[in-house]
Amino acid sequence: MEELYPICRSITGDGVRATLRAIERQIPLVCSEVPSGTRVFDWEVPPEWNIRAAWIKDSGGRTIVDLRDHTLHLMSYSAPVHAHLTLSELLPHLHSLPERPDWIPYRTSYYRKDWGFCLTHRQRQALREDRYEVLIDSDLAAGNLTYGECRIQGETEDEFLIFTHICHPSLCNDNLTGIALATALAREIANERTKLTYRFVFAPGTIGSITWLARNESRLASVRHGLVVGLLGDRGPLTYKRSRSGVATIDRIGAMVLAGFDQRARCVDFSPYGYDERQLCSPGFNLPVGRLTRTPNGEYAEYHSSADDFRILDRAALSESLRALATILAIADRNETYVNLNPKCEPQLGKRGLFRAVGGAAPGDFEHALLWLLNQSDGDHSLLDIAERSGVDFELLANAADALIAANLVRPSRLDAERRKIQ
Amino acid sequence: MEELYPICRSITGDGVRATLRAIERQIPLVCSEVPSGTRVFDWEVPPEWNIRAAWIKDSGGRTIVDLRDHTLHLMSYSAPVHAHLTLSELLPHLHSLPERPDWIPYRTSYYRKDWGFCLTHRQRQALREDRYEVLIDSDLAAGNLTYGECRIQGETEDEFLIFTHICHPSLCNDNLTGIALATALAREIANERTKLTYRFVFAPGTIGSITWLARNESRLASVRHGLVVGLLGDRGPLTYKRSRSGVATIDRIGAMVLAGFDQRARCVDFSPYGYDERQLCSPGFNLPVGRLTRTPNGEYAEYHSSADDFRILDRAALSESLRALATILAIADRNETYVNLNPKCEPQLGKRGLFRAVGGAAPGDFEHALLWLLNQSDGDHSLLDIAERSGVDFELLANAADALIAANLVRPSRLDAERRKIQ
Amino acid sequence: MEELYPICRSITGDGVRATLRAIERQIPLVCSEVPSGTRVFDWEVPPEWNIRAAWIKDSGGRTIVDLRDHTLHLMSYSAPVHAHLTLSELLPHLHSLPERPDWIPYRTSYYRKDWGFCLTHRQRQALREDRYEVLIDSDLAAGNLTYGECRIQGETEDEFLIFTHICHPSLCNDNLTGIALATALAREIANERTKLTYRFVFAPGTIGSITWLARNESRLASVRHGLVVGLLGDRGPLTYKRSRSGVATIDRIGAMVLAGFDQRARCVDFSPYGYDERQLCSPGFNLPVGRLTRTPNGEYAEYHSSADDFRILDRAALSESLRALATILAIADRNETYVNLNPKCEPQLGKRGLFRAVGGAAPGDFEHALLWLLNQSDGDHSLLDIAERSGVDFELLANAADALIAANLVRPSRLDAERRKIQ
Repeated sequence: MEELYPICRSITGDGVRATLRAIERQIPLVCSEVPSGTRVFDWEVPPEWNIRAAWIKDSGGRTIVDLRDHTLHLMSYSAPVHAHLTLSELLPHLHSLPERPDWIPYRTSYYRKDWGFCLTHRQRQALREDRYEVLIDSDLAAGNLTYGECRIQGETEDEFLIFTHICHPSLCNDNLTGIALATALAREIANERTKLTYRFVFAPGTIGSITWLARNESRLASVRHGLVVGLLGDRGPLTYKRSRSGVATIDRIGAMVLAGFDQRARCVDFSPYGYDERQLCSPGFNLPVGRLTRTPNGEYAEYHSSADDFRILDRAALSESLRALATILAIADRNETYVNLNPKCEPQLGKRGLFRAVGGAAPGDFEHALLWLLNQSDGDHSLLDIAERSGVDFELLANAADALIAANLVRPSRLDAERRKIQ
Repeated sequence: MEELYPICRSITGDGVRATLRAIERQIPLVCSEVPSGTRVFDWEVPPEWNIRAAWIKDSGGRTIVDLRDHTLHLMSYSAPVHAHLTLSELLPHLHSLPERPDWIPYRTSYYRKDWGFCLTHRQRQALREDRYEVLIDSDLAAGNLTYGECRIQGETEDEFLIFTHICHPSLCNDNLTGIALATALAREIANERTKLTYRFVFAPGTIGSITWLARNESRLASVRHGLVVGLLGDRGPLTYKRSRSGVATIDRIGAMVLAGFDQRARCVDFSPYGYDERQLCSPGFNLPVGRLTRTPNGEYAEYHSSADDFRILDRAALSESLRALATILAIADRNETYVNLNPKCEPQLGKRGLFRAVGGAAPGDFEHALLWLLNQSDGDHSLLDIAERSGVDFELLANAADALIAANLVRPSRLDAERRKIQ
Repeated sequence: MEELYPICRSITGDGVRATLRAIERQIPLVCSEVPSGTRVFDWEVPPEWNIRAAWIKDSGGRTIVDLRDHTLHLMSYSAPVHAHLTLSELLPHLHSLPERPDWIPYRTSYYRKDWGFCLTHRQRQALREDRYEVLIDSDLAAGNLTYGECRIQGETEDEFLIFTHICHPSLCNDNLTGIALATALAREIANERTKLTYRFVFAPGTIGSITWLARNESRLASVRHGLVVGLLGDRGPLTYKRSRSGVATIDRIGAMVLAGFDQRARCVDFSPYGYDERQLCSPGFNLPVGRLTRTPNGEYAEYHSSADDFRILDRAALSESLRALATILAIADRNETYVNLNPKCEPQLGKRGLFRAVGGAAPGDFEHALLWLLNQSDGDHSLLDIAERSGVDFELLANAADALIAANLVRPSRLDAERRKIQ
């Protein structure tokens, strides 16, 4: 995050490329360049934007605002301009936060050709009648939109999609924490043997996910679960936002995992505003994709301002977020439906060494897990179903399943087994 | 209501006709006369009842009770009688309320030939041993049952049925408020262009709805929504009683509209006792008909007594009831299901002028309404569904739908469109 | 219970036979003997165990522990032994409860050949280094497993199964109360005319129900409802444990009946541990069988120890348990679905003497029951459904159904009628 913070990112351009190169030093990445003007559903890929310099000087030549001081000073996608303006001509191009006079806001104008500067309200109020020189040395020209993907092949083609946006400039929680934790997670997963295939997509928000969807439509049927991730480092509680359907497997896993973390963690309903779940969960795709953040977009004071810097991050929160993500992925990967091969009455577990020999006292947790698994494994109930109904820890149930497979008392259901064979 | 209050109404007779004539001066009305003896399902239309005079006099010729003082003094449908009776012969024919000694109760005997007087308990207790002269100068003879209908044709034949009973004599909340507000509502609707056709039925309770159902069975399939209305002027909270199914569209609209009024407003479950929902929601019809009252029948002290007069009415309550009714009708009329014509990802609203140009700050309520409508319009979710899920105001969503239709981004679902074409 | 308390029961042997003989003096019983070695699903019927004597003596010939003092002193199914042992050789065979130093625990070793003694912790702590003589004069030999059944034929073959275990020795709440109340209930039922057929099974826990299921598999389709009963005499609240499905008719009846008893009564979810519901609700059978106890297994301090004696029983609790059981059976027996023969509007109840003659005042409870029954009897709603929805007492609804049948206004639904005809 420290390396990425100073880069002036936007939805296209060299800032995005520099960001992807930094990620690529941690995990294998395939980058795609999509030409400006490419039609992607109702949108088209915009001109590529690159910026060299941007400042405002007063008539005395003193620099009032300079991009070099903070990437937020320039409204993202500002068109080139070099002009001398009176204060009243300049003011419509200035953005500040009166209620937070020391913070610089984050503003963009991707699709309406415009230019602007963002500054603290104190800076704005200090401006006097004068003739100001304004320079924005930017390019808005045919080029490309760039995104990166890290695919980690599992035993099956069933995919878990992790999506994070990479278009924000010097903003820490939104979006450096998403980039950093997705990268860390991909590095972890790459070392494990998994059933699912994992696809991490690092792309600009909105137009990036729209472009990715347009170019990957044929493979969306493989997406079994997905998460949009970001805003994972602040001190707020973990927040899982449900998919559009609200009852996808990922939604149930999200709820189960968050219930195991601190009590403030909470699940919220889907809404069509937020990050790239807006596109992934549009009605034409309706993917089983949830979202994990801590405090959601717009709900913390520092959001989309220069105050979203390293000071609002918390090491413990980042680490908890990573653990939550890893647990969600582990449960999705391990979930399976079993069939009890001895469904009439309980099998005699004692003779297989799976039950205590002396009766009369209560059995232990593992024995309860065995009984739950046997009782519910009629081919209709997955480990997740059983964990939800029984309250028994998912991992303990998974261990019980392993023991019962070894004893030849359950087998994976035909559906799950066949899916694996096909692959 | 002031004009209707003195009329001695019952389930048949000139009181009903006078009432319908008064309504007819406000709205167009088609009146039906159904002959006594007509078979209507398990019932038959009773003889027509008309009353000229009714009194009790003591041996000194002093009038003890007189119909001219209050229409409640006579048990409705009392058979003619002229007799001299001792006190003990008279007493079985007298009805009073010991616990409310100043109120006259409302009593009826429609289907068992009987006669009786209702009086305050103070009047009854003042009676001494004497020879009383009793006169009831009534007719119980072949005639007709009368009801009135006001039909307001909409763009479709889909009907919204509003039903109110008109058989109670001088009782204000039950039933003059129902008659008055149904009339006011019909007058409002008549001036609007509506999708639905509205049918207001003014009929005597029970036998009136049974007769109406028997004569309109073939057109019940057009009834999409319905409300029984009455008891709308007291100071109690608005009370919506669900239809027999409990999950009809009208039930969901009722719940949504009441949630927007004062916090005391409440929805209650269906029960097979009350007003004409008993017949409209009988299992052979099971119409999607709810009921709107303020305090329901039997739940306020003055119910079915002379104390149900103008003093228990409240102007603000009457006005709120009318607004609630009008809002329910408006939502039923406006509800429609749309199909997003650009279901893959969001359409680019900005280029159509439907989204703010500068990004970074939160969008407004109307933009949220647009996003919700687009996201949910897969042909399965009506405006009502979307309003329930999103919490966005129904009318704002309807405005968003209009904007998206204008932008060619959604269209009414085929089902809705075809229904309109057929008509 | 007083007669049965001293008998040394186990899962096979003469203790079981003596118990069944005692029951047989109260109700007709058919006993089955199933030979050792018989395969029953994944299990086999074990050798029959009989015990003549068991004691430990010290080197001075003083008796330390003797089966004659308490049947719990011997670990059930102990293999024969006669040996002289040092204290350290003896200790692994001794079971006690350090936290309850005056209680003897209940321990078993049915399927691993072993022997052991159970004693109070005070007895155990008093043992000194010595040479102890140990005698267990038991047989573990080919024989039989014994269980008893009392079948009470009803008008139909639809069965209500009541299952109680009979394998525990001198333990009062678990299992003498189950045996006693099942017996009392069978005696009551035998005197009544019932629609359902009742089958009371008295069998050893686990292996008994497994054996019974193996031998009755073909008739399980007749089981419409079932209850495992036991632990019915302690001062804890009535506890209904739902069947595996959780929504069986028996589960709804259990909830309704318990709601009518003291407020502490509660329903708990199914879990695959407990008594013979483990087998009856295994996924291969999944029978609609719930369980009625007061405090469930393992949840009271005296459970499976010598402290589970007559002192923890309460006469009022036993009597309440019996009433709850009888009510559950009565509702299951009486439940039926009716069809309203006059489904369009209400029938005119007044002319049939079923409704008060004078209108205006509220009808009574029975009239409400009539209206609910008529309104809901569309062939889809049973008395139980109607009682749940309306809150009207089940028995009052049943009386209303009888009155409406007599008036030819409803009839039993075809399904119910045909089931009866077939029989």
